[in-house]
Amino acid sequence: MIPFPDSRLAAQIAFVVEIDRLKTVLRQTLLTDSSRRENDAEHSWHIATMAFLLAEYADRTVEIGRVARMLLIHDIVEIDAGDTFIHDEAGHEDKEERERKAAARLFGLLPADQAGEYAALWQEYEARETADSRFADALDRLQPLLHNFETEGATWKPFGVTRAQVERLTPRIEAGSKRLGAYARALVDEAVARGYLAP
Amino acid sequence: MIPFPDSRLAAQIAFVVEIDRLKTVLRQTLLTDSSRRENDAEHSWHIATMAFLLAEYADRTVEIGRVARMLLIHDIVEIDAGDTFIHDEAGHEDKEERERKAAARLFGLLPADQAGEYAALWQEYEARETADSRFADALDRLQPLLHNFETEGATWKPFGVTRAQVERLTPRIEAGSKRLGAYARALVDEAVARGYLAP
Ligand SMILES: [Ca+2]
Repeated sequence: MIPFPDSRLAAQIAFVVEIDRLKTVLRQTLLTDSSRRENDAEHSWHIATMAFLLAEYADRTVEIGRVARMLLIHDIVEIDAGDTFIHDEAGHEDKEERERKAAARLFGLLPADQAGEYAALWQEYEARETADSRFADALDRLQPLLHNFETEGATWKPFGVTRAQVERLTPRIEAGSKRLGAYARALVDEAVARGYLAP
Repeated sequence: MIPFPDSRLAAQIAFVVEIDRLKTVLRQTLLTDSSRRENDAEHSWHIATMAFLLAEYADRTVEIGRVARMLLIHDIVEIDAGDTFIHDEAGHEDKEERERKAAARLFGLLPADQAGEYAALWQEYEARETADSRFADALDRLQPLLHNFETEGATWKPFGVTRAQVERLTPRIEAGSKRLGAYARALVDEAVARGYLAP
């Protein structure tokens, strides 16, 4: 950080520098070339880009720039709280508390108006009640399916994930988009047929 | 890829899978913790997030969701063309031709309407003539300065980059935002004072 007289801009830049750490938070998902684990920042890039590309499939009216903004910041709490694997039930017990504290610290770096705005946007994402957050969540659920398919089940196999476990999440894709949900169901069928996913 | 009857959605998903490769295109910039080089996907995440956070500093009226979309896709051509270091003059000679071919192949994976739309958005970014593209470019120029400052000149020092070279790019920040330009100038002053950047 540099000495700078405009404290509002200085706080915003401090946040911009702090969130660079999202690039070091690893997910269970591998890149599609199987070379390494994906990190939260590049995952967020991927699904925000998907939001614009696939906007036409949202079942309800969404403000797509807002969906993208939500997806860009949806994992920032994991800088402090870490990534919790979707099929890890123990890890999910204290997830909410860890992420709430992380949101307070991280968004709290911003000027007060933006701190409130970004905390609210993240809470809206987590609650999955609005059209924007449901479509955002659908994309966040669809992208790892694509990666798992391309890597022949690289995350599913070592964790012994079954078709039934994956299908517990498909309704979250359908809640944002029936068409993307149908794609996900076809992908699961094909993954089981090819032996990438346990039946 | 799975067999899927909706060829439009299948083409869009093929593009979504193809652009995963952006995560393997390395830039010269290091992460702020100096642990490794940054890749294009996480860089794109960072500056698209900055667009929303710093929108108030755009000097002209911008459509910020559109700026973010532009930034999310601005480096996709580098999947084929590779990253050209901003201070590498030889590498810039055939950059335009390599990137033009890359845009044709990559955006050409999309359905025709989106192929045209995304190619045009990328060309607008490259031309730096509109308010949206100038603000986008300002963020793309500012972010590596922040990384270089945090890493005590990790990219500047090995390439022997001087203050004059960095200052040739500052006007591109000012072209989108006088306030962010002023921040960049203060950062350069401080970087020289601390010995991160050659005078
Ligand atoms: Ca997550």
